[in-house]
Amino acid sequence: MTATIHQLKQGDSPSLEPLISLVSADLNRVNAVILDRMQSEIALIPELAGHLIAGGGKRMRPMLTLGCARLLDYPGSRHHQLAAAVEFIHTATLLHDDVVDGSRLRRGKRTANLIWGTPATVLVGDFLFSRAFELMVEDGSLKVLRILSNASAVIAEGEVEQLTAQRRIDTQEDQYLRIISAKTAALFAAACRIAAVIAEAGEDAETALDAYGRNLGVAFQLVDDAIDYASDAATMGKGTGDDFRDGKVTLPVILAIARGDEEERMFWAEAMSGRSIADDHLARATRLLRETGAIDDTLARARTYGQRAVDALGGFPNGMAKAALVQAVEFAIARAY
Amino acid sequence: MTATIHQLKQGDSPSLEPLISLVSADLNRVNAVILDRMQSEIALIPELAGHLIAGGGKRMRPMLTLGCARLLDYPGSRHHQLAAAVEFIHTATLLHDDVVDGSRLRRGKRTANLIWGTPATVLVGDFLFSRAFELMVEDGSLKVLRILSNASAVIAEGEVEQLTAQRRIDTQEDQYLRIISAKTAALFAAACRIAAVIAEAGEDAETALDAYGRNLGVAFQLVDDAIDYASDAATMGKGTGDDFRDGKVTLPVILAIARGDEEERMFWAEAMSGRSIADDHLARATRLLRETGAIDDTLARARTYGQRAVDALGGFPNGMAKAALVQAVEFAIARAY
Repeated sequence: MTATIHQLKQGDSPSLEPLISLVSADLNRVNAVILDRMQSEIALIPELAGHLIAGGGKRMRPMLTLGCARLLDYPGSRHHQLAAAVEFIHTATLLHDDVVDGSRLRRGKRTANLIWGTPATVLVGDFLFSRAFELMVEDGSLKVLRILSNASAVIAEGEVEQLTAQRRIDTQEDQYLRIISAKTAALFAAACRIAAVIAEAGEDAETALDAYGRNLGVAFQLVDDAIDYASDAATMGKGTGDDFRDGKVTLPVILAIARGDEEERMFWAEAMSGRSIADDHLARATRLLRETGAIDDTLARARTYGQRAVDALGGFPNGMAKAALVQAVEFAIARAY
Repeated sequence: MTATIHQLKQGDSPSLEPLISLVSADLNRVNAVILDRMQSEIALIPELAGHLIAGGGKRMRPMLTLGCARLLDYPGSRHHQLAAAVEFIHTATLLHDDVVDGSRLRRGKRTANLIWGTPATVLVGDFLFSRAFELMVEDGSLKVLRILSNASAVIAEGEVEQLTAQRRIDTQEDQYLRIISAKTAALFAAACRIAAVIAEAGEDAETALDAYGRNLGVAFQLVDDAIDYASDAATMGKGTGDDFRDGKVTLPVILAIARGDEEERMFWAEAMSGRSIADDHLARATRLLRETGAIDDTLARARTYGQRAVDALGGFPNGMAKAALVQAVEFAIARAY
């Protein structure tokens, strides 16, 4: 692998388009697998799953598998089925997340749990999760199975840790980073790593793509957590201030608390406890996050992780695939601006 | 395989003891794997999982894996890890079932969802499910992975179908049997079949043990559904009449409706809709189930499936293992008397 350095660009509206164009034919194949394998004789299953799966998701994770496979000039078709498995795992966790958070809005639409209730949403999540493993077993790579079963366990651990940290204003940046590395970045990393496995690109390529995905995943979640205080429902596709009302102590809040005076810490304690979550409390929270530089510095952290993601691609040959993967990082970060 | 015929005994209190004695050393090893692999740095995970796992379950499914391995004179130790995986899958489904049903009592103890809430219970279920797959991947048999990932998907489908049939008094016996075959019998079948896989006993042995487990599972669930109207909380370890109050249209109810007059059908419609579920309604339901012979005939069906389970063992050599597996069937059925 030869070294090349890409600097993260800022300000000139990067987009996902290069990645989308690069993998669009493959993505159609993935979507066909998804559509085919979410079917069941039990009509409620494709109905509920389809609501979320067809509901305007970016297919970020499967696109990463496809983009990394392209980066490695992988000539086969195993990535279609495996990218579908990745998306099924992701969809299962989204369904369960919305139950866990009691969310009402996702990607700008009413959540499955709101429409079909908690029982059906939990069980269809379980079905998709099982179906993901069936797809992987059909593919037949124990290494891919190991990577994705491990990622799944880590995701669940991260979600449980997030639950235990909820409403705890003593949450530290380290713990927060551990949580988002587990609940978000682990699947990004696995989605990228499995491309290197099926392309038989070697241990170095696996490690590099894992690092790319993992750092991108952390950056992605940091930006999400900043956006939750900085956008409206139309941009985000979910309610602004959801994290605030759920008492999720994300990095913006951790930084604002660390930098606030005694009275401000009292405010955050009341807010995160769920006692002060009216719209004017949210307005004050947003103001404090801006004034203390907490949003800016969260985004600065995101840029650092984004740069690490880009640097992890340094050893791969330049070309359309690499440029598209670099711009995907820039896009993930630029969403906040 | 040579044919021998065992007749199901009735009335002379069969017990699980022969199976327990047969596999007790192996079961200790399985319990050690379970204890080891349910650990996590996130303390809530072993705490919540341990509440259910240590909470007096019979370990029926892992014992079946161990008993079948013994039947085949399997000399290795892979069955310990795989039986733990089976128990993790079972535990994950129990945790999610209790969320789905809003259950308050399980194995005579308060349910995890009552103590720790729905979010933690859903997520720890997900963790155990992922961990089950990690254990299978470590074992390394794609065939075992295929059997258990397929069983998991079928279980979830069965649970969703049960949900769609809930409160529907037009549910027919065929649909009910399809539901319990999926939600209960599929894991019994898989637990037994994988023993034949690791023992490399051949396709005939796999099919036979699958049939043993599947028929035992159906019998087991039929008896459970009869007991739900026929025992007290102390015997069952869960509240009597739970199915009645949840509007679950189980075989006893299907038979009573089919045999009832117009007024009785009205009563069942009201009851299953959830409008008439007071204790005196439950008392009338129990009386109707007895008078129409619905309980007796549900148990007669269970005996038929039990006999099929025993017959499926016909080709295996006689001995302690076979006798223990036969008596496990007799025990499953005798629980109702």
